[in-house]
Amino acid sequence: MKGNDNMNLKDYVATIKDYPTEGIMFRDITPAMLDGKAFRKICDDMVAFAKKVGAEVIIGPEARGFIFGCPVAYSLGIGFAPVRKPGKLPRETVEVEYDLEYGTDRLSMHVDALKKGQKVLIIDDLLATGGTVAATIKLAEKLGAEVVGAAFFIELVDLKGIEKIKDIPVHIALKY
Amino acid sequence: MKGNDNMNLKDYVATIKDYPTEGIMFRDITPAMLDGKAFRKICDDMVAFAKKVGAEVIIGPEARGFIFGCPVAYSLGIGFAPVRKPGKLPRETVEVEYDLEYGTDRLSMHVDALKKGQKVLIIDDLLATGGTVAATIKLAEKLGAEVVGAAFFIELVDLKGIEKIKDIPVHIALKY
Repeated sequence: MKGNDNMNLKDYVATIKDYPTEGIMFRDITPAMLDGKAFRKICDDMVAFAKKVGAEVIIGPEARGFIFGCPVAYSLGIGFAPVRKPGKLPRETVEVEYDLEYGTDRLSMHVDALKKGQKVLIIDDLLATGGTVAATIKLAEKLGAEVVGAAFFIELVDLKGIEKIKDIPVHIALKY
Repeated sequence: MKGNDNMNLKDYVATIKDYPTEGIMFRDITPAMLDGKAFRKICDDMVAFAKKVGAEVIIGPEARGFIFGCPVAYSLGIGFAPVRKPGKLPRETVEVEYDLEYGTDRLSMHVDALKKGQKVLIIDDLLATGGTVAATIKLAEKLGAEVVGAAFFIELVDLKGIEKIKDIPVHIALKY
């Protein structure tokens, strides 16, 4: 029987050619979520990183940031604050705008989601261009929190998102 | 010090009057997610229910079904399969259409997300009219799985969603 440490997580990522548009190799993480052992290993590795950087709260952008972020918060017994598209959070929010390939998008958090000086870990499934994580860092900093790290299941290396988060510790399980 | 069992989870739900439209009392669960002890208690109560009904896999509709569903799957060491809006899952899917107050909406799952006869627990944050959970049951049944229960943090009792899931065991933490 293979132990979890010998598990090759790439076996649990499906690659779909030309999705959603031609030339894109889409990395589908749903097989890794569907396998209980793989899912737990991905989360537990993030939990270990969260401990190392001293995270006091986890934040993650909807919807796929919730997938790993919520189990990590649960495992540590700390809180999770969602980062959402505008109009989804019912109370007073802060917002940031960020650039997409065409146009811009906005992300928001409740103003009382983070405390001044609180150590925050950002969790998302995928680091691509880094636009989402950069916007999430800005949100946390607007609220006076300290971003102590960012954790991702997958990095798409060619898109160089890592350059946008050079100043913080980063955990990545798989690179493509 | 109060033990978790004496925790009143209603203390961690913010009620916003007339949001998103007049006459609606919006129940905001983000304070319950942000408090590590409350978040863990909500999830652990769902874990206990999942064990009781013999869940082999958890499914949850985006985005808020991921919030409690993923930690429950993680805790049990079983898989989680996302139920998503059309166009979000990259491989072959099954879809169901369901009625909204005005118009219709669609939900989808990957065709290989569930196995025939597999015991499935549906998790979502809120039971309102029951449209989403009824559609999710249909998706699971299309894939040949057996829905052994549904778990929610909150039920909005007046909307009578519970009538749509009379045939399965249901776990609810808070009623309004």
